[in-house]
Amino acid sequence: MVPADPERLDDLRLVELVIFDFDGVFTDNSVLVSSEGIESVRCWRSDGLGLARLAALGVATLVVSTEKNPVVSKRAEKLRIECRQAIDDKAECVRSLCAERGISLDRVIFVGNDINDIPALEIVGLSVVVADAYPEAVEHADLQLSRNGGYGAVRELCDMIWTARTTAQEKV
Amino acid sequence: MVPADPERLDDLRLVELVIFDFDGVFTDNSVLVSSEGIESVRCWRSDGLGLARLAALGVATLVVSTEKNPVVSKRAEKLRIECRQAIDDKAECVRSLCAERGISLDRVIFVGNDINDIPALEIVGLSVVVADAYPEAVEHADLQLSRNGGYGAVRELCDMIWTARTTAQEKV
Amino acid sequence: MVPADPERLDDLRLVELVIFDFDGVFTDNSVLVSSEGIESVRCWRSDGLGLARLAALGVATLVVSTEKNPVVSKRAEKLRIECRQAIDDKAECVRSLCAERGISLDRVIFVGNDINDIPALEIVGLSVVVADAYPEAVEHADLQLSRNGGYGAVRELCDMIWTARTTAQEKV
Amino acid sequence: MVPADPERLDDLRLVELVIFDFDGVFTDNSVLVSSEGIESVRCWRSDGLGLARLAALGVATLVVSTEKNPVVSKRAEKLRIECRQAIDDKAECVRSLCAERGISLDRVIFVGNDINDIPALEIVGLSVVVADAYPEAVEHADLQLSRNGGYGAVRELCDMIWTARTTAQEKV
Repeated sequence: MVPADPERLDDLRLVELVIFDFDGVFTDNSVLVSSEGIESVRCWRSDGLGLARLAALGVATLVVSTEKNPVVSKRAEKLRIECRQAIDDKAECVRSLCAERGISLDRVIFVGNDINDIPALEIVGLSVVVADAYPEAVEHADLQLSRNGGYGAVRELCDMIWTARTTAQEKV
Repeated sequence: MVPADPERLDDLRLVELVIFDFDGVFTDNSVLVSSEGIESVRCWRSDGLGLARLAALGVATLVVSTEKNPVVSKRAEKLRIECRQAIDDKAECVRSLCAERGISLDRVIFVGNDINDIPALEIVGLSVVVADAYPEAVEHADLQLSRNGGYGAVRELCDMIWTARTTAQEKV
Repeated sequence: MVPADPERLDDLRLVELVIFDFDGVFTDNSVLVSSEGIESVRCWRSDGLGLARLAALGVATLVVSTEKNPVVSKRAEKLRIECRQAIDDKAECVRSLCAERGISLDRVIFVGNDINDIPALEIVGLSVVVADAYPEAVEHADLQLSRNGGYGAVRELCDMIWTARTTAQEKV
Repeated sequence: MVPADPERLDDLRLVELVIFDFDGVFTDNSVLVSSEGIESVRCWRSDGLGLARLAALGVATLVVSTEKNPVVSKRAEKLRIECRQAIDDKAECVRSLCAERGISLDRVIFVGNDINDIPALEIVGLSVVVADAYPEAVEHADLQLSRNGGYGAVRELCDMIWTARTTAQEKV
């Protein structure tokens, strides 16, 4: 994990919205394909606990996915997190989401793993990639998590925000 | 694995009830989510042999799970082990289980992997975590197993109890 | 892999029947359990090619499994290999199989991974375990494969027999 | 990854057709077998992005598989890539494909992982194997990828071709 510096912790304290890519972030980037054409993805149970703590802090979360796939909506529903699918241009989606909600891009975190996440990584206040992100995506990230997608990367970021927030509150 | 000391072996000989968290202990903490919304978890076949030996020794076993999920009951049923689901407060559940059955908390082992297991880990006679438990949970454990959840952690603990018990009997 | 010695190669040349445990040998010892109670196991595609070569050599193969489980019969059917399930005493099963078929136990290989395979490992001509077998089982094996169960262990043994057989034929 | 030399990059620039084996190349060579006899394979989401870039370059792609299996057609359909199944002789299939389409074998890449891919690897302009290919297959390959089958090997080759092509175009 890239060591946190004071400025970065400030970012984590101020974040209002965390936007996650799905495949390779919530999942280990695999897809099981059955002989009947049913797809399944591999997620991490403990991500839920982290997301619940973000919700308790009032930090909004959202999943964006290039593909339209029921596995995304099923997982998002279970985690009680909003999702937007069939998003060709994730940066445009991030911009319009912020405009709709009156949130400054500086207060947004985007978490990705692959080259099609780069435009979104470039425009947010804090760009984050999973440990096993593609090198091209890592180059565009402020922070690389220590955990792989589908192995607790989402939880790790939630814990970092939780720690930064609760530490900040103690200081006040 | 934390080296066993004589006192610890005594705990293992005296244990009357072993309570397991499910996700991350019986499983590798992953969940497969299908496009039809069906969830699956990954368990370890050889856990069954260990649990059968505990049953033969007369040591009771039980699974507690935060979530209410059919995968827990299906796995527990297969392993012929009792389960309690939708448990928000695992420590409270452990206390009431012991009260119901007239078992001292000192004679109970709790096995967990995440921060929501900490209150339960704190009140039992021997607190155990899997090799890949969250660091916060490890800090509250008397014993950290050498195997990961879903890769034989349950079996490893069963084997340790079996060895301690059968060794103890030989000494008498 | 334990280095082959001349005597061992002789065993591989003379083998008439190879008996495999299923879970942890054909599979990685995991079981996926779905919310609908459907079990799945993880096998290795390339095992099939090895088994086909054994069949071409006239070496018989068979799977024995403690549990009665449709996943065993489904996999065995696909691989065109006979299976016997619900076998409590694998050693007894091996003995009666050899008696039925008039095969000497010296000409039999048994492949296992766990303690309930030990009695069978002890009575055959060549006892084999997978790379990730339980240590107690390894102690009873003549040969430990370099590959894990479900990751090509079956294929590895088939290839060793194939090589020993075809090398032997060249020497004649 | 075998270091690229100038001649090799020329091959990548000139390639007209990439033919992939399926199991062990698009997948991690595992097969999940359910108690109902349904098979599933584990693929890599990010392969799709690489194949889309090849299509944009006008490079044809195709999957050949020894077995006839609906999982192959389901995955190929999703990736919008043609597939041929129940192919006993992959080299013969490669030859007839090239004859049909008027493509020189020198302009073809074949990607495999096991011994039954060797005849096809031997006749194409550039023979490629995944990082975890069987050693016998590796011996017949011009290029061994750094990624395993089902963990981005397909994407890695697509990225190499993309880089070689776009670099070549810039030089013109």
